[in-house]
Amino acid sequence: MTIRLSHLFLRTLRDNPVDAEVASHRLLVRAGYIRRAAPGIYTWLPLGLTVLRRLEQIVREEMARIGAQEVHFPALLPKEPYEASGRWEEYGDGIFRVGDRRAEEIEPGVRRPNYLLAPTHEEVFTLLVKDLYNSYKDLPLSIYQIQTKYRDEARPRAGLLRGREFIMKDSYSFCLTEEDQRAAYDAHREAYVRIFERLGLPVLPVDAVSGAMGGSASEEFLYPCEIGEDTFVESPGGYRANVEAVTTVAPEPIDYTDLPPAEVHHTPGTDTIGTLVEAANDHHARSDRPWTAADTLKNVVVAVVSPEGQRHVVVIGVPGDRDVDFKRTEATIGAKLGIAGEVSVEAAETTDFAKHPNLVRGYIGPGLSLDAPHLGEDSATGIPYLVDPRVVPGTSWITGANEPDQHVFGLVAGRDFTWDGTIEACAVRDGDPAPDGSGPLTTRRGIEMGHIFMLGTKYSESLGLQVLDENGKLSTVTMGSYGIGVTRALAALVEANHDDKGIIWPASVAPADVHLVATGKGSEIYEAADQLAADLEQAGLSVIYDDRPKVSPGVKFGDAELLGVPTIVVVGRGLAQGTVEVKDRRSGEAEHVELPQAVEHLKERAASLR
Amino acid sequence: MTIRLSHLFLRTLRDNPVDAEVASHRLLVRAGYIRRAAPGIYTWLPLGLTVLRRLEQIVREEMARIGAQEVHFPALLPKEPYEASGRWEEYGDGIFRVGDRRAEEIEPGVRRPNYLLAPTHEEVFTLLVKDLYNSYKDLPLSIYQIQTKYRDEARPRAGLLRGREFIMKDSYSFCLTEEDQRAAYDAHREAYVRIFERLGLPVLPVDAVSGAMGGSASEEFLYPCEIGEDTFVESPGGYRANVEAVTTVAPEPIDYTDLPPAEVHHTPGTDTIGTLVEAANDHHARSDRPWTAADTLKNVVVAVVSPEGQRHVVVIGVPGDRDVDFKRTEATIGAKLGIAGEVSVEAAETTDFAKHPNLVRGYIGPGLSLDAPHLGEDSATGIPYLVDPRVVPGTSWITGANEPDQHVFGLVAGRDFTWDGTIEACAVRDGDPAPDGSGPLTTRRGIEMGHIFMLGTKYSESLGLQVLDENGKLSTVTMGSYGIGVTRALAALVEANHDDKGIIWPASVAPADVHLVATGKGSEIYEAADQLAADLEQAGLSVIYDDRPKVSPGVKFGDAELLGVPTIVVVGRGLAQGTVEVKDRRSGEAEHVELPQAVEHLKERAASLR
Repeated sequence: MTIRLSHLFLRTLRDNPVDAEVASHRLLVRAGYIRRAAPGIYTWLPLGLTVLRRLEQIVREEMARIGAQEVHFPALLPKEPYEASGRWEEYGDGIFRVGDRRAEEIEPGVRRPNYLLAPTHEEVFTLLVKDLYNSYKDLPLSIYQIQTKYRDEARPRAGLLRGREFIMKDSYSFCLTEEDQRAAYDAHREAYVRIFERLGLPVLPVDAVSGAMGGSASEEFLYPCEIGEDTFVESPGGYRANVEAVTTVAPEPIDYTDLPPAEVHHTPGTDTIGTLVEAANDHHARSDRPWTAADTLKNVVVAVVSPEGQRHVVVIGVPGDRDVDFKRTEATIGAKLGIAGEVSVEAAETTDFAKHPNLVRGYIGPGLSLDAPHLGEDSATGIPYLVDPRVVPGTSWITGANEPDQHVFGLVAGRDFTWDGTIEACAVRDGDPAPDGSGPLTTRRGIEMGHIFMLGTKYSESLGLQVLDENGKLSTVTMGSYGIGVTRALAALVEANHDDKGIIWPASVAPADVHLVATGKGSEIYEAADQLAADLEQAGLSVIYDDRPKVSPGVKFGDAELLGVPTIVVVGRGLAQGTVEVKDRRSGEAEHVELPQAVEHLKERAASLR
Repeated sequence: MTIRLSHLFLRTLRDNPVDAEVASHRLLVRAGYIRRAAPGIYTWLPLGLTVLRRLEQIVREEMARIGAQEVHFPALLPKEPYEASGRWEEYGDGIFRVGDRRAEEIEPGVRRPNYLLAPTHEEVFTLLVKDLYNSYKDLPLSIYQIQTKYRDEARPRAGLLRGREFIMKDSYSFCLTEEDQRAAYDAHREAYVRIFERLGLPVLPVDAVSGAMGGSASEEFLYPCEIGEDTFVESPGGYRANVEAVTTVAPEPIDYTDLPPAEVHHTPGTDTIGTLVEAANDHHARSDRPWTAADTLKNVVVAVVSPEGQRHVVVIGVPGDRDVDFKRTEATIGAKLGIAGEVSVEAAETTDFAKHPNLVRGYIGPGLSLDAPHLGEDSATGIPYLVDPRVVPGTSWITGANEPDQHVFGLVAGRDFTWDGTIEACAVRDGDPAPDGSGPLTTRRGIEMGHIFMLGTKYSESLGLQVLDENGKLSTVTMGSYGIGVTRALAALVEANHDDKGIIWPASVAPADVHLVATGKGSEIYEAADQLAADLEQAGLSVIYDDRPKVSPGVKFGDAELLGVPTIVVVGRGLAQGTVEVKDRRSGEAEHVELPQAVEHLKERAASLR
């Protein structure tokens, strides 16, 4: 196929769009692949659509290879299945809701939502299988779709990397045994590895937490990248996990029988860890070594906000040299407090403190003895108290004495205070030990490209998906779900493959094999280029042909580099000597090829790049 | 490619779905091509998706042939462009509206809509071209998408024939001259003819009215079919039009100078045309011929309902032997009354009459003289009065005298009464003359498969799409828009191609070339069938292979006929004699083919069917 630039619906832009912060966003807009329609919502222009379709085809082939079958669900779905699973509420403002003409009219033109634009399809896949299948003989089954999804992101940003309307491949596996489910999970994992290999995108599978999806095991596929919104860790020994999934290596409990009793000291003006450590060393120095922030127990007051917007005040106790990572905390705190859905965690506000006047800001502590606890569900305040796993029995701390300007020294965990539970709340630091003993962790950033889940029976139970087993008894189906962000992968490919001149597409998804540029004024140049384009098309190559008669060579070369086809061929000055120039977009290296050999040369080159 | 029924995600159903009134709905669900997700909203199962993709591909190829370029717009769009064109209001309850997280919250969980799910994309295509192009050199341009559309139909019915989420191909042409626009329109028209030819669907282009789309010329592509919701007419001379677009052949005005004056008669109990004609002949007979319903002027009170729900009472005067066709009336009455958008017309209700106490039901008339009009904008009632085009000056009528039990005889149009305008309101009848003089019309029913419009400048003006012409002056672009219902075409194909056993797909879109059935118990049968499936795949044919080991031959044959692949091949009893049976799904004719020749035979057969 040949696309002539004289006719292509395309306008390349010299300037970066003002709202574009990342390279993929800038370049995809400037090169005329996409165009913004609304915040986080994009239109696909002809070349963008070509790349997108090629990428989808790779996904389809690899899904077919593991025996997954393609279906296609509506984007607009009734709320009932999502109410049954609890997600209608849990998603909060995160989904788009629709009231159809039969919905209650609140005022003219405003109806109470009874439909949603689906953010993911677990519920209706479950119901479809329930609808059609009823026997163990029908399983295992893996079905998938490549489909437009909707999420009402609070901050749509970075172009296709975080959109509100986007394309995902989502698959679901249905099995009767854990063993089959594990096999389906592993097959998807392998398919994902192959997909990203074929795309040439260096993606890493990392352990993850399941979050609002429910279920047991899950892994994310991350593309390591500075602009990524996810942080993950890796160890020299090969441990890799999303930072939310990292578990802290807790020390062994310490025998505290010989420890001296705690003492309260007057520590005026020490409402920060820094001033407290300074005052401790100035006025209450110990002999063997100076106090450090790690000797203090910092009690951080947070608000856990449920999907419905309810605020729950919680105190988290962490070593004073550590920071609370709200995102990490969000991954597990909902389950600890018995709040369903995706919670958010934020610093407590004045209004939260106002409801708890017995919290003395800057001097909060768990209380001076087990008989008089100040924090915890069974304490004077009744505020849930969760601590970092490093706070084990026998550890001794400097912490607040719940009076202005008062701290307690040598307060021993387990002897003088207790807690409601532990929580992975502290930010992971470079050098922290990997939980599997494989060495110190380093942290990196990445973009989530895919996510696979062992869902268990969360959806099959809430929606009643059972089949008859070999003994004729009803048995609940176990499920897996598996997503790949298709439009996001396209953007990540640009993040991974560009330079200051433009995009450098991998051949697997490039909009064409060859970008043919005719430069010069003689009609013989355009005749030769026309012929070459026709011959390349005949040879089965796809060609973008810049046949624009009144455009300068500089503009044409600039556009070729911006568009990013892997091979640029120039029919121009060399033609007098019977050659064309063949240029590698990535390396910039060029060679002159005799015109009669050009087709064969380009065919081989295209084959070698694929 | 080979699809094995032992693994395919499919459950064929013996019973018709209870809500299915038409064949395509029944068969597509029973054969496992689609499954209902909500009213008018369907899920595509694997085989349905295959057929759909093949159909889309035919559309793509024919669009490419006329130089139209594919893009892809979001389904979720901000309301502003639709407000600018007026359609946000005009669509009334006919579209799905969405309030995103930034929209005003009316009460918890209910937001004022600021987005819509697009029913069609004229506005944003216009804005995209405005965004990227600015010169006459960029035009003409034709761009299109194949995309999911949304309409909140009041009565979703007939499966895919009238859905709420459906797939359309919509194209738009942008030109600077009427001549170019006509060429783009003609090119689309030819592409549509070719598309339906390739699908083997006997579709007829008929004249249509543009309705809410605005613009001048338009044609519909109708598939003639008893269950169709559209009525069209044709004449022996080749005139064809949607019934809404038929214009009445009005008689010449008649000289009324010699006509006697009108006379009011007491006609008790004659509040219907039937009783009136009877009373006229009984008590006021004329000498030359009896009175008939055609001599009476029936004044029908209707309510014209605007998209916003406002009711406008209008009286329509038609010959008493004719019925008012509300759908035909709706096509033009909005424009006559100056109401924007798609209006609906219904019989006036008690509440409408209550507002006009001077309308005497059963005895309504335009008034007895031009000095004292009873109907019309400048009359005693002020009610707009529109008449059928057959009511020309000089025609003489029996009609109501606006008093109970009183009618006026010999009331002459133009002499005794006048009207605000004429309207095409009467139902077209078999035998009515074609407007172009090509003979008497016959009416038929059909399903609208496509619609092409010369839009003119409605959208380019409201959204400011101008480009610089050859003289450097800004000039408004003229547009066309062109739709094909892709999912609807799939359903129409089933309407056109089925029997009581199931679907009979045309080869152009069939889910496979061959449906291979293995029947019998010997392992040699399955081995031979396995080999044949592999050989057919090798030869480039697509195969559905019924390899289910424990399913009876009867069920297998039934499924093959239900699924509707054009060629059914049976590996069974004949194998002992070294033959397989090759059966034509449409004719039911079968022949025995030697196994070694089977692949070649089927290859030739598939080629001949394509």
